[in-house]
Amino acid sequence: MILSDRSKYMHNSIEEADKLADKLEKSGKKIYRLNRGDPPKYFPTPKYIIKAYKTALEKGITSYTAADGTESLKKAIAKRYSSLYKLKLENDDIIVTAGVSEALLFLNSALINDSEMAILFKPYFAIYSPLLKLNGGIPIFEDYDESNNWNINVDNLEKSLKKLKTNGKLRKVKYILITNPNNPTGTVLEKSILREVVDIANEYGKLLISDEIYDEIVYNGAKFTSISQLAKGIPYVILNGMSKDYDSTGFRIGFVIIPEKDKISEILKKKICDYAQMRLSVNAPAQYAAAEAIGNLVQHKRAISSMVKEIAKRANYATKLFNENPILETVKPNGAFYVFPHVDLTKMKIKNDEEFVKLLLQKEGIQLTRGSGFGSPSHIRLVALPPKEILDYSINKINDFCKAYSK
Amino acid sequence: MILSDRSKYMHNSIEEADKLADKLEKSGKKIYRLNRGDPPKYFPTPKYIIKAYKTALEKGITSYTAADGTESLKKAIAKRYSSLYKLKLENDDIIVTAGVSEALLFLNSALINDSEMAILFKPYFAIYSPLLKLNGGIPIFEDYDESNNWNINVDNLEKSLKKLKTNGKLRKVKYILITNPNNPTGTVLEKSILREVVDIANEYGKLLISDEIYDEIVYNGAKFTSISQLAKGIPYVILNGMSKDYDSTGFRIGFVIIPEKDKISEILKKKICDYAQMRLSVNAPAQYAAAEAIGNLVQHKRAISSMVKEIAKRANYATKLFNENPILETVKPNGAFYVFPHVDLTKMKIKNDEEFVKLLLQKEGIQLTRGSGFGSPSHIRLVALPPKEILDYSINKINDFCKAYSK
Repeated sequence: MILSDRSKYMHNSIEEADKLADKLEKSGKKIYRLNRGDPPKYFPTPKYIIKAYKTALEKGITSYTAADGTESLKKAIAKRYSSLYKLKLENDDIIVTAGVSEALLFLNSALINDSEMAILFKPYFAIYSPLLKLNGGIPIFEDYDESNNWNINVDNLEKSLKKLKTNGKLRKVKYILITNPNNPTGTVLEKSILREVVDIANEYGKLLISDEIYDEIVYNGAKFTSISQLAKGIPYVILNGMSKDYDSTGFRIGFVIIPEKDKISEILKKKICDYAQMRLSVNAPAQYAAAEAIGNLVQHKRAISSMVKEIAKRANYATKLFNENPILETVKPNGAFYVFPHVDLTKMKIKNDEEFVKLLLQKEGIQLTRGSGFGSPSHIRLVALPPKEILDYSINKINDFCKAYSK
Repeated sequence: MILSDRSKYMHNSIEEADKLADKLEKSGKKIYRLNRGDPPKYFPTPKYIIKAYKTALEKGITSYTAADGTESLKKAIAKRYSSLYKLKLENDDIIVTAGVSEALLFLNSALINDSEMAILFKPYFAIYSPLLKLNGGIPIFEDYDESNNWNINVDNLEKSLKKLKTNGKLRKVKYILITNPNNPTGTVLEKSILREVVDIANEYGKLLISDEIYDEIVYNGAKFTSISQLAKGIPYVILNGMSKDYDSTGFRIGFVIIPEKDKISEILKKKICDYAQMRLSVNAPAQYAAAEAIGNLVQHKRAISSMVKEIAKRANYATKLFNENPILETVKPNGAFYVFPHVDLTKMKIKNDEEFVKLLLQKEGIQLTRGSGFGSPSHIRLVALPPKEILDYSINKINDFCKAYSK
């Protein structure tokens, strides 16, 4: 066998049909790619960010930077967190990465020994489980509760940890990972629930990781709470980046924030920095642009407000259209830009969400992601970023498809 | 223990003193950073590349790209290999990565099981061994032979493989990794030697990986041979990228090339693509710029010729200055841009290369890399990219330092 055993886990269900979609497109079929959460595809990256990026190139900023990120970018990130969450950050609390995916790769490699565990919530962002398993880790799955607007069921989480304690397995649990706002459900976690999660992490002495990449993409009156507003004095990690709030997925700029000064936090900061040194640097002119994008609070506020207003409309519209379909049932998202309907497969001549998504792509040219790719079968995820006409066309096609395959 | 066992291997000796250097600089000391092989720091990235990068931004190319790279970049890479080495490449033979370091991370994770092995040659590029060990691998070290201009001793390689076969361990060896031109020695491997290495890899059925990131930075009359000119019909991998030949380290664009169609090659292509999907995309506008940089053979030829001419002068000058020092002995490099003198520590009041490099930074403000970081103690690596004045100043300081600490 040429490949390692671990390599079998390396699979991203969001992109698994990309090559098939390319092939169909080359054969002349029009494909609607509603699988990747890619804002700049529909909302041009703000001009002030593009301008800064070009300035970096004119200034000749094309060398390696410090492995853990430029000082100016770190300064801008600290300014952002001070302004949004009154969180004080020092340079060493921040490590710049090539997107949150690289951050997750580093964290899992740095934290997880063979047969150690982490607590993930279903549905999870598609790469959480593969990256954990790649390092020999075992996911302990909790559920976001669909019947309660996809919120965390705190009692279940506590029961689960208690059971692990009783079984003597608690020491094997390395972290608890939450996503807020959630991808794929669009849930903005309630503050009271988050507080309980923090208390539980504290009580059981577990590192809390909060992926907050959509923290400013919140609507329908929902209110976002950063873990940094609650988790004072316990070790925790925030993951964030440029891709979504700053509408620049293609820059590949993410960051790991470890704000506390306890022993675990300090060890982790240094180690993630070692990982960063292994790949020398993140794209240099993009970091320069990111510093301007994040540091210019006024311009950013203007850009994000208008984008979120439009995203809200589109996500709500998509939800409404889906809910006209008796086979689908959708919890309304209040954050991010995904719609994640449940598919009642008992009413269909289709065996699972994987077949649903594959047939839909082949027959109708609509590319979604299967719910099982996020750990929640019998669901489909649609990216609700495109304008009304495309949502109209695509969701009508999906609804027709459901009708055509209904029993 | 919060950290995983494997994480202890994650260390890049090239950057280990960066934080100390920052600190010294902040305290007012002038630091000469001759540790990172970073051409654009001394040779501005060619204007036609900067222009293309800016065009990408003006065109709004800020979304994710295909995970394994844009078609236009792959097309340009294929054009390059056809022009330079008469190698025919198809789209699927190429996977674009965030530098060669990401490529090495993917390859080691995809190939190496616990206690499997790989053959590395000392001195190796600093991250080869950590990335192998990170995945549970065991390096089998061969030596580049300093007494024979750092060439590969083919007899020793064959002996080593024969021994592994006798011991029943041969099946555990997953790959043989060579670097040509070499970092840190600057050796351009001879064609006849390369041919023997290819034959041995073939005979023992081992995957050959050739890191050719400096393939156009060759001088003093040396002639570079790409593994692709010799390894027809056996599975092999070429690593390359934009950083050095295209003078743009800060773009973080690398690529993995797997040209053959045998079963192992096909499996590996698909798997590395899965790894690429995990992190969604490489920086999008940098890929656009890379396509122009690589595809424009005429402009590139002009740029690389003048840069290599100057690098040759600087590397030769640095070598000459070092060889005036009786404590140092340097094999003249014919490629890349490093000088890697042997330090006769028996003549010094310094216990090893690690102490040498640390003291030199603290006392003289000159940052080098210790040879032990490349697996070859009692050596130091200097980046010979700076202009004559800086080389003069720095090497004189090093020579004075040697005198001051001589017995």
